[in-house]
Amino acid sequence: MPRIALLGCGLMGTPMARRWLAAGLPLTVWNRTAAKAQALAADGAQVAVTPADAAAQADVVVTMLEDGPVVEQVLFGPAGAAAAMPRGSLAIDMSSILPAAARAHARRLAGLGVASLDAPVSGGTVGAAAGTLAIMAGGEAADFARAQAVFAPLGRAVHVGPHGAGQLAKLANQMIVGISIGAVAEALLMAQAGGADMAQVRTALRGGFAESRVLEVHGQRMVDADFAKRGSLAIQLKDLRNALATAREIGFHSPITEELARLYEQAAQRYADLDQSALFCELQRLNADGKT
Amino acid sequence: MPRIALLGCGLMGTPMARRWLAAGLPLTVWNRTAAKAQALAADGAQVAVTPADAAAQADVVVTMLEDGPVVEQVLFGPAGAAAAMPRGSLAIDMSSILPAAARAHARRLAGLGVASLDAPVSGGTVGAAAGTLAIMAGGEAADFARAQAVFAPLGRAVHVGPHGAGQLAKLANQMIVGISIGAVAEALLMAQAGGADMAQVRTALRGGFAESRVLEVHGQRMVDADFAKRGSLAIQLKDLRNALATAREIGFHSPITEELARLYEQAAQRYADLDQSALFCELQRLNADGKT
Repeated sequence: MPRIALLGCGLMGTPMARRWLAAGLPLTVWNRTAAKAQALAADGAQVAVTPADAAAQADVVVTMLEDGPVVEQVLFGPAGAAAAMPRGSLAIDMSSILPAAARAHARRLAGLGVASLDAPVSGGTVGAAAGTLAIMAGGEAADFARAQAVFAPLGRAVHVGPHGAGQLAKLANQMIVGISIGAVAEALLMAQAGGADMAQVRTALRGGFAESRVLEVHGQRMVDADFAKRGSLAIQLKDLRNALATAREIGFHSPITEELARLYEQAAQRYADLDQSALFCELQRLNADGKT
Repeated sequence: MPRIALLGCGLMGTPMARRWLAAGLPLTVWNRTAAKAQALAADGAQVAVTPADAAAQADVVVTMLEDGPVVEQVLFGPAGAAAAMPRGSLAIDMSSILPAAARAHARRLAGLGVASLDAPVSGGTVGAAAGTLAIMAGGEAADFARAQAVFAPLGRAVHVGPHGAGQLAKLANQMIVGISIGAVAEALLMAQAGGADMAQVRTALRGGFAESRVLEVHGQRMVDADFAKRGSLAIQLKDLRNALATAREIGFHSPITEELARLYEQAAQRYADLDQSALFCELQRLNADGKT
């Protein structure tokens, strides 16, 4: 039974904490806004005042934070977790950050005698609550093996390569999702523009080679013109920017992601705070403008 | 029990004919290369010498041919089916042709007192043999209703709008498939270029929001570097060109399909006769060139 410290009790961290507690794993939690950590005390979590306090007695420290700079601050800043972690313990960063930052964190932790994995997730708050997250892990195979008890209550973990590879896989995931939303939006809009019934076209395509989670979930939002935010368009754009930054870093040419990043960039001027499927609205607007 | 005449016994028509015969539907077949029609005699089909002969006694004439000009020839050319069809009978074109051509055929048939549907399919030869095709039908609702007995042994039919809408839905299908193959190829290649294990990344992504038939089927071909032709890259390019031609016709701006058409165009210079998933090879080549 590894003793877990969770740093970050936000929309994702909180349901993950409940999964661990329900599985009987001893858990200490910390959050910058203390009230969110306190809310987990009723479920059986210990509440710590600083990241260092949370980490001192833990076998595994899990970070689930907003971005790379926040992870760096919580690990290596004042009262940060890293310096307090016992030698031989394991740091797992489940936040979505740049692969280069993940590799830098791994090096600094190794210098302190602490092993680490980058293990970002896909599946959202619904997947976190249900324990069905897709977990993409980068790091040493032995560390991946000993993290199983931590991952198992959360979902399905796959070891995808060395440090940073988990974050690369997450970028690959976001590239596919972002491009697929564009594909479904453009195809459904064109069918409608040509006189077909968009809802029926989506139904006709289900189960064929065009079938995807995006056609199922985001395609339905397009048909319903329901663009209330679940995943925000601004965050989809951030993900594609991170993918392009990483592509530049490794000298990789990614023409499709570049085209989609341009479209999301343009869409964000009007629809940043809507659902990512609102790329549909931008393509609709482009076409309405073109016809006037 | 509608009496069916099938014009075109190719890779798709032949397994469809067998599905109708197995369901007990009376069937007459015709094919330009007569041997392919003769092969169905053993299964119980009548074999006709011309399209007109096949059509004369039929309630429903189904065309499953290579492209629009061939459909036009077989329907309206010398010894063509249209003039021989009884008034009130139904012509169903299940070939993949341009929506504009489908509308033109419907008008000419209506002038002869013959009703029609455009009803292209997705699912390939495997779907045709198994009776699991996705069938996208355009035309009058009443004609769609009386075509159910013909469609049912082949798969799942959805009425997507007026004449031409079936072909529009098929183009939408091909746009999504073609773009999705690009998305999966670019994402897996970038993950690999950054040091991740491509096969493991694909496994990690399965079941999340990036899940799709393309990730499942074409993604596996990319991981295996198995680009033996199932659906050819040349035909995927033709489909995207048809989508762009239709977009121009209806004044629709489709920036994502345009970008992908450029990439498939470029890929076809080397990989036209490989599987459509060989777009992966082109992105790989682009990146290898960039680094030398």
